[in-house]
Order: sequence, then C-alpha cells, then structure tokens
Amino acid sequence: MDKKNLQLAAGLVKPTYIAQAGQALNSRHNLVTALLANRRLPPTGWDEATIEYLLSELAMMDSNNFLGNVGVGEREARIFCPLVARRCFRLAHGVGRSGDIAEVQPKAAGSSLMSALCACLARDALRVAGLANARAALVLPLATGMALALTLAALRGSRPPGARLVLWPRVDQKSCLKAIATAGFTPIMIPNILDDSGVVRMDAAALSAAIEAHGADRILCVVTTASCFAPRVRDDVDVAARLCARAGIAHVVNNAYGLQCRATTALVNRAMAVGRVDAVVQSTDKNFMVPVGGAIVCGPDAAFIARVGKTYAGRASSAPALDLFITLLSMGADGYRRLLDEREARAKEFRAALAACAAAAGEALIAAPDNTISFAITLRRVRDPRRVGAALSGGGATSAAAAAASAGAAAVASGAAADDDGAAAAVAVPAVTTVAGLEFRGYGSSVDEYPCAYLTAACAIGMRQADTDEFIARLSKVFAEAQKQRGRSAAPCAAAAV
Amino acid sequence: MDKKNLQLAAGLVKPTYIAQAGQALNSRHNLVTALLANRRLPPTGWDEATIEYLLSELAMMDSNNFLGNVGVGEREARIFCPLVARRCFRLAHGVGRSGDIAEVQPKAAGSSLMSALCACLARDALRVAGLANARAALVLPLATGMALALTLAALRGSRPPGARLVLWPRVDQKSCLKAIATAGFTPIMIPNILDDSGVVRMDAAALSAAIEAHGADRILCVVTTASCFAPRVRDDVDVAARLCARAGIAHVVNNAYGLQCRATTALVNRAMAVGRVDAVVQSTDKNFMVPVGGAIVCGPDAAFIARVGKTYAGRASSAPALDLFITLLSMGADGYRRLLDEREARAKEFRAALAACAAAAGEALIAAPDNTISFAITLRRVRDPRRVGAALSGGGATSAAAAAASAGAAAVASGAAADDDGAAAAVAVPAVTTVAGLEFRGYGSSVDEYPCAYLTAACAIGMRQADTDEFIARLSKVFAEAQKQRGRSAAPCAAAAV
Amino acid sequence: MDKKNLQLAAGLVKPTYIAQAGQALNSRHNLVTALLANRRLPPTGWDEATIEYLLSELAMMDSNNFLGNVGVGEREARIFCPLVARRCFRLAHGVGRSGDIAEVQPKAAGSSLMSALCACLARDALRVAGLANARAALVLPLATGMALALTLAALRGSRPPGARLVLWPRVDQKSCLKAIATAGFTPIMIPNILDDSGVVRMDAAALSAAIEAHGADRILCVVTTASCFAPRVRDDVDVAARLCARAGIAHVVNNAYGLQCRATTALVNRAMAVGRVDAVVQSTDKNFMVPVGGAIVCGPDAAFIARVGKTYAGRASSAPALDLFITLLSMGADGYRRLLDEREARAKEFRAALAACAAAAGEALIAAPDNTISFAITLRRVRDPRRVGAALSGGGATSAAAAAASAGAAAVASGAAADDDGAAAAVAVPAVTTVAGLEFRGYGSSVDEYPCAYLTAACAIGMRQADTDEFIARLSKVFAEAQKQRGRSAAPCAAAAV
Amino acid sequence: MDKKNLQLAAGLVKPTYIAQAGQALNSRHNLVTALLANRRLPPTGWDEATIEYLLSELAMMDSNNFLGNVGVGEREARIFCPLVARRCFRLAHGVGRSGDIAEVQPKAAGSSLMSALCACLARDALRVAGLANARAALVLPLATGMALALTLAALRGSRPPGARLVLWPRVDQKSCLKAIATAGFTPIMIPNILDDSGVVRMDAAALSAAIEAHGADRILCVVTTASCFAPRVRDDVDVAARLCARAGIAHVVNNAYGLQCRATTALVNRAMAVGRVDAVVQSTDKNFMVPVGGAIVCGPDAAFIARVGKTYAGRASSAPALDLFITLLSMGADGYRRLLDEREARAKEFRAALAACAAAAGEALIAAPDNTISFAITLRRVRDPRRVGAALSGGGATSAAAAAASAGAAAVASGAAADDDGAAAAVAVPAVTTVAGLEFRGYGSSVDEYPCAYLTAACAIGMRQADTDEFIARLSKVFAEAQKQRGRSAAPCAAAAV
Repeated sequence: MDKKNLQLAAGLVKPTYIAQAGQALNSRHNLVTALLANRRLPPTGWDEATIEYLLSELAMMDSNNFLGNVGVGEREARIFCPLVARRCFRLAHGVGRSGDIAEVQPKAAGSSLMSALCACLARDALRVAGLANARAALVLPLATGMALALTLAALRGSRPPGARLVLWPRVDQKSCLKAIATAGFTPIMIPNILDDSGVVRMDAAALSAAIEAHGADRILCVVTTASCFAPRVRDDVDVAARLCARAGIAHVVNNAYGLQCRATTALVNRAMAVGRVDAVVQSTDKNFMVPVGGAIVCGPDAAFIARVGKTYAGRASSAPALDLFITLLSMGADGYRRLLDEREARAKEFRAALAACAAAAGEALIAAPDNTISFAITLRRVRDPRRVGAALSGGGATSAAAAAASAGAAAVASGAAADDDGAAAAVAVPAVTTVAGLEFRGYGSSVDEYPCAYLTAACAIGMRQADTDEFIARLSKVFAEAQKQRGRSAAPCAAAAV
Repeated sequence: MDKKNLQLAAGLVKPTYIAQAGQALNSRHNLVTALLANRRLPPTGWDEATIEYLLSELAMMDSNNFLGNVGVGEREARIFCPLVARRCFRLAHGVGRSGDIAEVQPKAAGSSLMSALCACLARDALRVAGLANARAALVLPLATGMALALTLAALRGSRPPGARLVLWPRVDQKSCLKAIATAGFTPIMIPNILDDSGVVRMDAAALSAAIEAHGADRILCVVTTASCFAPRVRDDVDVAARLCARAGIAHVVNNAYGLQCRATTALVNRAMAVGRVDAVVQSTDKNFMVPVGGAIVCGPDAAFIARVGKTYAGRASSAPALDLFITLLSMGADGYRRLLDEREARAKEFRAALAACAAAAGEALIAAPDNTISFAITLRRVRDPRRVGAALSGGGATSAAAAAASAGAAAVASGAAADDDGAAAAVAVPAVTTVAGLEFRGYGSSVDEYPCAYLTAACAIGMRQADTDEFIARLSKVFAEAQKQRGRSAAPCAAAAV
Repeated sequence: MDKKNLQLAAGLVKPTYIAQAGQALNSRHNLVTALLANRRLPPTGWDEATIEYLLSELAMMDSNNFLGNVGVGEREARIFCPLVARRCFRLAHGVGRSGDIAEVQPKAAGSSLMSALCACLARDALRVAGLANARAALVLPLATGMALALTLAALRGSRPPGARLVLWPRVDQKSCLKAIATAGFTPIMIPNILDDSGVVRMDAAALSAAIEAHGADRILCVVTTASCFAPRVRDDVDVAARLCARAGIAHVVNNAYGLQCRATTALVNRAMAVGRVDAVVQSTDKNFMVPVGGAIVCGPDAAFIARVGKTYAGRASSAPALDLFITLLSMGADGYRRLLDEREARAKEFRAALAACAAAAGEALIAAPDNTISFAITLRRVRDPRRVGAALSGGGATSAAAAAASAGAAAVASGAAADDDGAAAAVAVPAVTTVAGLEFRGYGSSVDEYPCAYLTAACAIGMRQADTDEFIARLSKVFAEAQKQRGRSAAPCAAAAV
Repeated sequence: MDKKNLQLAAGLVKPTYIAQAGQALNSRHNLVTALLANRRLPPTGWDEATIEYLLSELAMMDSNNFLGNVGVGEREARIFCPLVARRCFRLAHGVGRSGDIAEVQPKAAGSSLMSALCACLARDALRVAGLANARAALVLPLATGMALALTLAALRGSRPPGARLVLWPRVDQKSCLKAIATAGFTPIMIPNILDDSGVVRMDAAALSAAIEAHGADRILCVVTTASCFAPRVRDDVDVAARLCARAGIAHVVNNAYGLQCRATTALVNRAMAVGRVDAVVQSTDKNFMVPVGGAIVCGPDAAFIARVGKTYAGRASSAPALDLFITLLSMGADGYRRLLDEREARAKEFRAALAACAAAAGEALIAAPDNTISFAITLRRVRDPRRVGAALSGGGATSAAAAAASAGAAAVASGAAADDDGAAAAVAVPAVTTVAGLEFRGYGSSVDEYPCAYLTAACAIGMRQADTDEFIARLSKVFAEAQKQRGRSAAPCAAAAV
C-alpha cells in the first residue's frame, strides 16, 4: 500500500479513513526503517503482525518467490510441499555460500538480509546481556557442540601445524569433548578441585602446569566452561585468559547457557579485557528460548570471528537464524532485559526454596555461590537416590514431574550415591566411563569421587514462579515418601558432612 | 476421538453420522499405523491434514508440551515467541543427544520418533531412487559441504593416524574442498581430462598413479563427484571404487544432486557393489525440494554410517529432518517416482531445445552424455559472454531471467571467454583462484584452459515445462540481440571448433 | 520495503541484489495497483504470498491493529484468542454498519476496503459467468435461504402494503419456502407439470393464471428457481420475467447453484433483458468453492440491490466475504473460466457415463436437457430403492460412498419408489410433508406423484474426472448386487415406461 | 496415536519414553472426554495445541475431508483455495440444514459436533455470567441486529396475525429499529425520561400506557434494551417483563453488550423470573472478544429458542460459532470469570479517572449509576464539542487516539452541542433524523433535547489498565488545548446546570 495504492483505495473507502490507515501503515514501515538503520534490537518487542509483514517482504526478495521466475540452476529453492513453504515463510535458500556462512547470496537477497540483520541483533543482544567486549558475533546454524568444533577448526590456521592439544578443565558433559575430537584434536583433561564445602572448581595451578608441561607450540588452545551443572561452578575464565595470553595460546570459552546470568557474563566480558579470549560460544536455545539448533560465536577480534564463518563449508539451514531473528524482534531490548531480571529474581527464590526443602528433609544445599543457574542438594539420607529422579519425573498421573527428568538424571549421574545405611559401598565405587577416548571415574560430577549423592535442578531463563512452586511441592512429597520408607525399615541414618 | 469420545459425541450428533465419522478417523489412524509398521514411504502421498495431525501428536509427546509440565533443567525447550512455536509445530528439542545425532532424547519422544521415522523414509527414498545397496542412511542437519566434512572426520578413527591426504579429482565448486580443509585434512587435486568433444572428465590413470605415489597409509580417502556442472561429467565412481578397494583406502562420493538422475544413481549403486564406497553424500534440498540445510549420508556399511552420526558433537536443529519428513510423507513413493520420471523426460526435451536454440545462433551444445542434469552450449560467437548471463538474469522488467543467474554465473565463471573477434586473447588468460590453499587456473570449468566460453543450464527436479519454454525464449532473444550488436560492429566471426 | 528501506538494506546486502529484489517487490505492488484501479478479477490468479501480503496490509489499516491503539468504545474488535486472530487475518470488525451491510466503517478502513473490493470482484465474476445484465452485486454474509428472505424483505417497501403473497413454482427444497415465511409473507405454490419423458417443469400457464387470480396488488413477487435437482428442470425464468413485467409485480430468481452453468446463466441474463427481474440470488459456496455462508444478490437495478443492503440490520461477519475475496483473487478470471469449462466438459461425460451405467442395469437416464447440473436415472428394477442410496453412501470400508449421500437421499426422498415386483403399492402412496405451513404430497420430486423411484447425482464445479470414474464404478457395483438379490428371489421385473 | 500405534512407536524410540508420551497424549484425550461428557466450559482454558488437535479431528469427521471421498452432490464443501481451507480448519459445510440452523448435517458430523458443543459452551458461559434462568441458548451466525430480526420473525407464529406492533423504549442506535422493520413489523417508539441529574431512562408508565392504548392483540412484543451509551441507562427490564406478563405479550431483551456486566446480567436474569422474557439477544464479539458476526439468543423457554433456530432459512457460515467455540475453550470458566472481574475493577477506576479528568477541566461526569459500561462527561465549556472527538481520534503522529473514534463520534452524535459562549443556539436546534420510517429529534442522546454536549467512553471487556491511562492522558491534553483556545478568545463561559 504505497501512496499510489492508498489514493486508489480512497476511491472505494472514505478518504479520511484511508488517510488514517495510511498513517498506521507508515508507523509499521518506520519500525522496519529503524531496524535497518540502527541494526539493533528494537527498544520494545514487535507484534506478530509486523514480524510476519517483514518476513513476507523478505521472502518476496528471494528469487524463488519472484513472480514469473524461471529456474535453470541446479538449486532453485523449489519447495515441494506447501506446508514446508509456509513454515519457512518461503525463505528456502538457506544462509551462506560455499565459501562463507556469513556471505550474501545472489539468488536470495531477502534471506541474506534476514541473516545479516540477525547477526546484528545477536550482537546487540550480547551487548544488552553484558558482553560489550565481544566486538563481533556470528550466528551459526549449529548447536554448541558443533559450533565449538567449527571454532576449533578455524584456529587451525592460526596456530603452528603441530599444535594439536586442547587443554580442558574437566566438565562431565559429552558435547565439548566430542567437539574437540571431531575437529581432529587431542583433548588433555585438567582435573578439578573438590573443596571442603563440596564445590567442584577448575584447578588453575594444574592448568598452568599443563601449559608448561606440554609446551605452547603443541597446544592449540584452552577450552574453559562458563556454565555447568552444580556442584561444579564456572571456570575462572579470566584466570585462564591471562594464562593463555601469557603463553600465547588460543582460548575458547564454552558459555553454553551462561549468557542468561549476569555474573557469568561479567566474568567472561572481563576475561576478554584482561587476557586472551579468541571466541565465546553460546547456545541460542538455552539463552533465547528458541528451538535447539543455533549458537552464537563471538569474540573481541572480528577477523577471527569472520574466519570461523569462512571455515563453514557450504550453505546451511536458515532455520536457527530465522528462529532467533523472529524471537529477538519479538522480545525487543526491554523484553530481553525483563527476562534477564526475572530469571535473576527467580533464581534467588529458587535457591532459597530448594535449601529450605532440603533442610526440612535433613539434607542441605551444596553452597556453590559461583553457580547461579544450577543448584544441588545432598541426597544423604535417601536410601536409593536413583529413585528420587525417577519419582520426580515419573509422577503417576500428573505430568508435572515429567520435566524434572534432568533432576533425576543428575541424581543418577552423580553416581557416588553414598546411601545412608552403609549398604552404599557397592554403589559408591564409581564405574569408568569413556568419552572420546578419555576415561572418567565418577562421570557426572566432574570429579573422580564425589562424597555423596545429590540432586541438581536449574533455574533457567523463562522459568515461571509456578514452576518453582510445583517443583518444590513435588520434591517435598518425594522426600516425605522416602522418609516413610526409611521409617518402615527402621534403618539408622548416618548423614556425614560433605 | 477414541472410542469413548466417539460414543459421547453420539449423544450430541446422530449416532449413524458419528459412526461414519469414526470410520473416517480410523482410516487416518491406519495411515499412521502403516507408517510405523512399514517404516517406508507411503505408497501415495499424504494430504496436509494427515501430516499436520501426526505432527500435532508428535509434539504432544515432547515434554515441553506436556500439560502441567514443570521444567527445572537447563534446557527445557521453552519457546518465547508463539510464531516460532507454530512454525516448528512445537517440536523444539531438536534432534540427537550429546553423544550421537541419531540418538533418541528422554525429554522428546515425539521429536525422536519423527527423526527416526525420517531416517527410515530417507532410506526408502534412496531405494526408490535406485541406491538399493545403501543399507544405512543418516539424515544430517547439515548441507552437503559440512556433511562431507563430518563424514571425513568420522573416517579418522578407521585409518592410520598419518593418513591425512584426501585425493580429489578436480571439480570447481568450493564446498567440497573447504570440507576437506575444515575436517583437518590435506586435499590432493587430481587434474581432469579435456577430451576432443569438449567434455571434461576424471583421469582414472592419474588417480591410480597418485594413490601409488602417495602410498595408501598416507591417504585418508578418495572423494569423487557424481553430480557437477557441464561440460564436466560425473566421475567414474565405479572405477574409483575399485581402485580404493584394491588400495584399501576409503572412498566418499559427493553425490550432491545426483540422486535425481537414475543414470547417476545406477552408477553409484554399482560402485558400492564392485568396489569400496564408505559413504555417499547427497543434498536434501537439491534432491527433495526442501529448504537448504540437510544431507543424507548413506553407505553399504551400517556401522560406518552410525559412526558418522556419533561423530556429530551435541544436539542439532530438527528443521532439516522435519522438512524432509513432511515432504516425503507428502510425496509418497508414487509422487517421488513421478518427479523422477518427469525430470528425466523434461531433461531430454530441455537438452534438445537448448541444442536447437544454440544451433540457430551458430553455437553448439557440448555433447556430454554422462551429464544428464547440467548442459552447456558454446558461446563462441558472442562478443562478451559475460553479458549473456547478465542479460538472462537482469532482463528488464520481467523477472523471468532472475533465476537464470546460475546460467550467467557459469558463463562468467567459464573464464576462457574466447571472444569471436580476436580481441579475446587478453580475456583468455585465466586468472589464478585460490581455494583452501590450492591454486586453480581457469577456475570454473574444472580444467586449466577451456577452449571457449560457454553457458550452462540445469534441468533439476521440479522443473516445469513452462520453465523450459520461457528460458529458451529468453535465451533466443539474448542471442538475437547479441547478433544485432555483432552486425552493427561488422566484425568477422571466426568460430573455431572446440 | 519502500525506497528508503531498500536503500538501507543495500548497506547490508549487495546493492545489485537489493535492486533486483526491489523490482520483485514492485511487481507485487503493481498487482495491488491493478486490483484497486481496475476493480476486476485479476487476469490470472494471485499466488498465496501476494494474497497474504495484501491481507496483512488491510489488517494494519483497521484500528484494532494500529500500533499503540487505545480503545474506549463498546466494540473495539479485541480478539481474545490468538488462534482466532490469525484465522481471520486480524480483520475483526466484520462488515457493514448498523444502517447498511455495504457501508464502510470508520474504525475499519482495511475491512471496508476488502469488502468493497470483494463486491467488485463478485460483480466481475458474474460478468465472466455470463450475467452481464446484472449491473449491481451485493455479497451477503448469508447463505441462499436467508439471502432470499432479506431480498423479499427489501421488496416490502416497493410494493403496496397488502402485497403479501409470493407466487412460487414448486421446488422441493425447504430453504426457499422457509425464506418466504421468515420474511413474513405467504407462499402460493404453483404445481409443476410432469411431461411424458419424466421431466418435471414449471407450469407457465398456471403461474399466469395465479397472478390473474390473486391480483397484482396482493402479490409481492414471483420467486422462480434456476437450479434444482433432476428430474425437475430450471424454471422458464424468462417467461416468468415477462409475466411479472406485464403484471407489474416483482420477480426474484433463486439461482442457488446455477451460476456454474452457462446455459442457466444465459437464460437468467436474458430474463433481465426481456422482462422483470428484481434480484438474482446465488450461493457463494456452491458456485465458487468457498465454505458455506455467503450469497451474491445481483440485479439490473443498482438502487434495488443497494436497498437489499440497507435492509440488513447491523453489522455482520466478514468471513463469507473474506473467503470469497481470497478465492476470487486466487482464481483469477482465467482460473474461473477454466473451472466453468471443465465443469461443462465433465458434465457431458458424467451424463453419458450415468446413462450407460443405467442402461447396463436395465434402467434409463431421465432425459432432462434443461438440467445440466443434476441428473436422474430410474430405479425401476431395484427392489428397494432406499437401499441404493444407503449402499452408495455406506459402502463398507471405503469412504468413496460417503459423499454420495445426496444421491441416496434423493433416492429415498423420491418417495414414489415404485418397486419392480408389484409390492410397491404400499410404498407408492406418498406421505404428506408440511413445510412452512404448506402440505406436499410426494415431497422430494417436486410433483405429487412421480411414477417411479430414481436416483439423482450432480456434476458440480470442481468435480474431478476421478470422482466420475469412482462414482460410476460404485454405482455399477450396487446395481450388480441388486441384480443378484433379484436373481435369488426370482421375482419377475416389470419395468414400466416412465 | 492409539495403543497400537504407540506400541509400534516403541519399536523406534525407547519404550519408557513412549509410555510417558502415551500418558501425555491421554491427558489431552481426557480433556476432550470431559468436554463431551460435561458439555460445559473447561474449568481452565485449553492451550492452543489441544484446541487445534480437536479441530483437526472434527475436520476429519466431515465428509469433504474423508480420504477417497467422492462427491456427486450439488454441495460438497469443496474448497478452491488452500488458504481458505486452512483458515476454516477445513470445516467447510457451515452449520444447520435447510430447516433448522441448529440441526446436524449428514455430511458434516464434525461441523455439527462443533456447533452443538458451541451451543453448550455458550449456554454455560451465560450461566457463569449470571443468566442461570436462560435454560436454552442458540448461537446464531448473525450479529445482534439480524439476530433480533430473526427472533421477532420467530414470534410471528405465536402471536395473533394482527399483532404487528413492536413497542420499543427509544434508544438511538439504528440496528434494533432496522431489525424491527426488516422483520416486517411496525415500531412504536416510547420516549424516555430525562431526569434532573442528566440521566436518560425508560418511561415505564409510558410503556404501560402504550400497551393499554394499542391493545395486546395488536402488539407483537416489547423490545427493551439492557446495554446502551451513557447518559442513557439500561431499561428496567424486570418492570417491562412484568408488564408483558400481565398483558400476555412477548418481550425481547436487546442485551447487546450487557453480558459483560454483572449488574445488568442480574437484572435480566431476575426479569426472567418475575415476568415474561421470550428471548435475550447478546453479541458474541462485544461480550466474548471474537470477530463481529455472531449472537447468542437465550431464554427461559427452550421451545421458543428452538423455534428461533427453525425460523432461520437454510444453512449458514460456521465462522461465528467456530470463533466462539475456539475462544470459549481457550478462555475456560476461570478465564471468563477473570475477564469479568477485571472489567468490573477496571470500570470503577475508569469512571473515577474520567470524573477527575472532567472535574479538572471544569466539566462533570454525568452520574448514571445504572450504566456501568458507558460513561459520559459534560462538554459545557468546550467551544466546539465536535472537535473533541476529532482531536481524540486524529491525534497527530500517535495512533493512540485512533481508537477513540467512538468517543468522538459520541461527542458529535450528542448533537445538542450547547456551546459555552452563547453562540450555541444555532447548533442546539437538533436536526431531525429518520430511521426505519421513524423521525427523531436530537438523534444520538435518546431524548429530543439533551441540555448540553457530552462525551462518552466505554470500559468494555478486555480493556487494559494502559488503555485507561493513555485515554485519560489524551483527554486531559485535549481539554488543555481547548482551554488555551478559550483563553485566547477570552469568551465568557456560562456552563448551565445539566
């Protein structure tokens, strides 16, 4: 409805009404103008109508949607099924070109524009979250694991040919380790420290010693972890950054879901200032509530981030970028800030409620102040810790527990499972788990022997008050049932300090 | 609407009508039953209603959609924007687990089921297309380039540690070469043969010699190409397979868009029987008309294909699998066969029309019988071959030409550009192009010096009769205009034989 | 994406790509311009993307979608459920104002524009179909029955206060009769003629006599029927038009599904030229393949058609107009013409196939050349005609027959049901049916006593070749089964001539 | 996913995951079971996934969606445009049959079930709102005006043939009056009382006298109004009900948007208990936030409500019922109650804020305690009251005012427009407006001469706090500007008491 069309419309509908409608249309166009001019998150989120309107215009800018288009290439973004065409808003060319995932495509100006804007919005979102030192950002159609692999592959050219080792403070989650292997490098695991309060943390001295021992020329990089399950806490990313800077080796931060936590973000941001950080990798689904499938790789050096993009071979799905693009427009800067604020407030409440619930059952929160997303409580008095997780997730007729599976999984994973009646010994011998060629004892707790069983639960972005309440209610019930069973068997409880 | 609900409904609507409706519902359920039981393409394509119905049931099987779900994990597939939730049919958990892209997820039975079924359908589609010897298939959320990289990475463990070379008959398309580099290997380019009729083909003797020269222990694999732009033809994949079998080295076939061509498929299928083929990689978008973003990796050895899946680090977007799943259900076996038949018939017509159009302009089709998808005609008499592509894609007010960009690109890319008035010499000296560290002369035509400029156009799956007609009309017009200009300048034409 | 926005976009994506995309966007705007300027069906149908784009712009022109809108009226088109908002494309204000269904609304420029354009397109579609003499058209959010009632109510003011009779050649379908009653008038039924060939037709002499008998001053109008079930044929609408013109009484044509038939349309069009036709009412669903709910009232006198609109009290749902608007844009003039052509060809085949199938079973097509949509065959030799319909619609596992219900219904409805074994007498006494206070004998066949049972089937717009084939196959099977039963009971067949 | 399909699925995905998913699917089926069994609003609203799931099942129960359906009727609900098919969820058969809008259709079990359930939900929603005495409810695909017309037409048979008068306390809104005329009856207007506080109300004595004067046999019914613009208040519906009971004449209540107000609902409910109420008509869009197009007709006598349904001639659009059905499922009983509660709280605040804003500008709220939806303030000191409305709706760059059009319209409509500088005389002579043959002086304020100009604004269901704030801010600004202009012209203000 440009000016001409509005004039024609005024021949059918009263001109004053059309004039007012024209103003309304203009106010939508102005939103798009601001987006294109500022390349930042809109101050307030867009409504669905505006987002769809923009997407429909972007689609019309791709050659597969040109009226009267004739395609004689081998790839013309023809879509067989209308259902698929609709769900991708007719943007079918994907993103990138054979040489570079961030490149624009001649046949797809609309998809390319979407992708370019998405990178701008992602960069701005990082700024809002607190990563101001990340001067460049790349939205990858890969989740954290493969994004790490690609980042490591991109380091290849910038380090000596013999630099094939990746130093990595232990974190018991498979993706990162597999990423190192997939990229063709050799992981060197740095064991963690288990302190008196039961917290598991990176051993900076061991890391430093390992750098020394292996020699910088043989080391590709250090990979640190900024978000993880309690009772492990985030690595001292800044300390690692200083060690890397001194040794002249690269440093990649696995910040999978740390962006949602301001303390973590501040730490990572400081690391970029005080030492060497080549890239920080974060998940789009865990931080921005989009479907699984994307990651943002950012860093202080735009040239390196661009190299990561150039390392991607060929085109890729535009789905992860599109989901993020829509979501960031829909959130706006204020919406994103509000989500961060809410999570912070919610996490404090959650931690307190969890501690109270644990205390009431004779258990304790494992104080790990440097983990503000994942929380752990001991399961010392529970006869069979594995059942807690199952009970939380199984939960009879209600489906409330179904989502608590991760809690249960963690309880099982903790392995240590020091039961309260002495019969735990057999269980307490941790099996050996092999991942990417490395052997781990006590896999799950990031140390070889964690002294007791425990349960973890996270308070992630988007969690509602009702989730907390329902989870705590359910957990209390599980504890109460465990108590009853204990009562029946009349076994003495000997809860040792952690 | 199970039996109980239908009985209740019969209290509101005449029972005989409800009974008939119940039968109709049953006939839908039976489609799903057949899919789950047979795990093959439905004989005829499903309608949209049935597909959406199945997707809605699958979504309800994922924990993020459980009624009363409480999520206390760090990844709960919360979706911020309803627009995004709808476009992914509420399937937000992606596919795979940290250890394996083909693994099922505890929180996402529906997504896992979709993914597993998609792999079955893809496997069946390969069979329909003619790749019966591919006993296993994996649907990757990566386009061809990265799928090749992952496949190469998966070979790492099965070859000696020093096997770092990838032998690769030249094909001037960047993705494959970048894939080799991204996976951390060293490409060894095997130059092609240019025969008298202007056809560019793999040099089997040179490949054999290179295997000998480098030694099997230093070679990871050979990567052959089964679909490419004319005047290059597909590699003798069976010959290469025999060489690899004899030398005991791996063999990966880049079959990006070859699945749509039965001759190509037959060749690749034979190669699996007569020699060694570890994996064949094909694009989902180019072969199945879905948005860019997926690839199918298949091969005769299920264990190796599974290893490719295990090499993928972490979870991934379910978008490419979902698009393929929907599309294959919507196509059905008969729909897919019809598309293959139509493309074959269309390609014959297209080739003939192109030859006639070229002849009328004093040009010629470059006879390359082993390329039945991409076709090339000479541009000997055209003063500025680069303009042909531009004219085809620019095309004034009509957008018909827009999609002809690839044709134009090819004309430009051919580089040789032997103009018809003798002034071509300057242009004819091909520049050097560097890709992934390798230098290429005459980049674009897959040989160092192609003797004349040419134009390529492809007849890909989904192309309509109208596309052919419109393209030929437009090309004729471009030739006519070129003729006029030539007439005006009164320059003599000296079209040499190729 | 106006000029300014495209310029900004060129800062992110290569300007030449953006320029080409801008042209593509322009070609869409030009479609809208042509629509607004010509107010006629587009020559070729629009694609879905363009239709949705226009609808999204129209929605943004309605006040409920203004950014920052503040609503303090009692009706602000707030939509509670996003699902509902999407399905109506956010056009929630309905159509019309309290005084006039065709009036524009101050709060809803977009809805008003849609409605106005829809009326233009409908008018043009009537022209394409052959109703060129209908100089004005109104799209009503009422199906045929209530549209007739409204039209009759609109006549109230233009006839003397005592003119309360509506003369109506019998047609055994309830809606029209109920419409007369609902509008507050008294129907006078004019019995039909049953001719020797079994055709039921309007009795022009009886109509003329009735006008005379009741006196023009007591008669509101004559309502004729231009489309009906065989063996009744369409009324001689032109003859009735001449009678009305002479008597000075109004004349309304119930053309429910006659628009799809060119012969019918030609007759109705001629009637407007040679006599008096105040309004012609046609269904949108039966003629344009939209969901049930709308009607087009047209006529030669724009003032009267406008009065029908003014007779509508209050606002109304925009759904029927929206469905028609979308459909007509999607069809285009050529698509509509093609549908009309196809139906005509299909109907000829259908009639022939039905006649052949009947003949093979010893039955006969009832030749009714003036009904080219509905066809009837005798069911003389069938023991229980009611079962034919049931068998066609029941049909065991296949759902093919489900849609044949109307055929079955007609078979049952025919009532006369003269069975072939003499036992028919009991059945042959037609029950009396009362509709709107009138009593009918032999209700269903539009005459008191039709001499035999019969089956009707229609060939309506949108019917496919496969429908014909499948129906004939099924009918043959039903006949074969009937034959078998007859054989078993060895009853003599005495098929009398109709 | 019935049991059999889940078992098959367990062959592809871990059986424990499938078992849990099966439970989740069951919890959805149970929602449908509860709906079908209870036929009441769900206690809490359904999520979109469940609603869409049910709609897709309903669609599959309609014959046009049967797999392999063969349609040989004249109406087979074929849908030409997929966009239309999707937006109506493939429910294309409409509602009703030729004889009855509430009747089920043989070809459309799903549509019929939806329609039947919608009527049940509507009936339950009336109960929640407070109309417990309405024992039957009918959802009509007509907005209030035509629903009134149909209701009046349905009364025809139950009153003597000569009963053609409709007594109607004046309310200056056209729809109702047009409805009376369209139904073929003669309206008798009963003038209102203007009391000392400026409130306009029904004159019960005049109504009683009119019944006497015209005689019950000549009167079809009384139509009272339960919701209207201030300063008119709702009619004493209970008083009228008693008068009608005594006189033995019918009584229809126009409760267009009164259902959202508990005080109004209580009054109407009492009227059904203490006197005669044949039918109460309410808008679906104004009370339930759906698009314009539906009405609910309810009453204490199920037989009469059924007769209204039988008076509807032919089928109709299912769009209004579908919108209501989706919305009521999505709201649930608790959601609806919350909306009612919120509106009540909001209305109190709105009234107070409006009074304060008026007072600050030297104007006053016109105290009309019996109107709790629409509020009026005087515009005595404003030079040109018409401009207030325009200023509120025009509003420069912001679109905030756009929706305030009704306020502006009301200001204009008030007509009386007694300006504050004595020059008002000319304006103060109200023009005569003719609607449906009746002449009105001072049309807009429901009395012949309202003593001053005024502005009305409504606080309707769904209004947000932000709407109130923004409107009051804007109104204050308009008053401030008016003050400035008055200052400049230095004209003395002589605001007379109302």
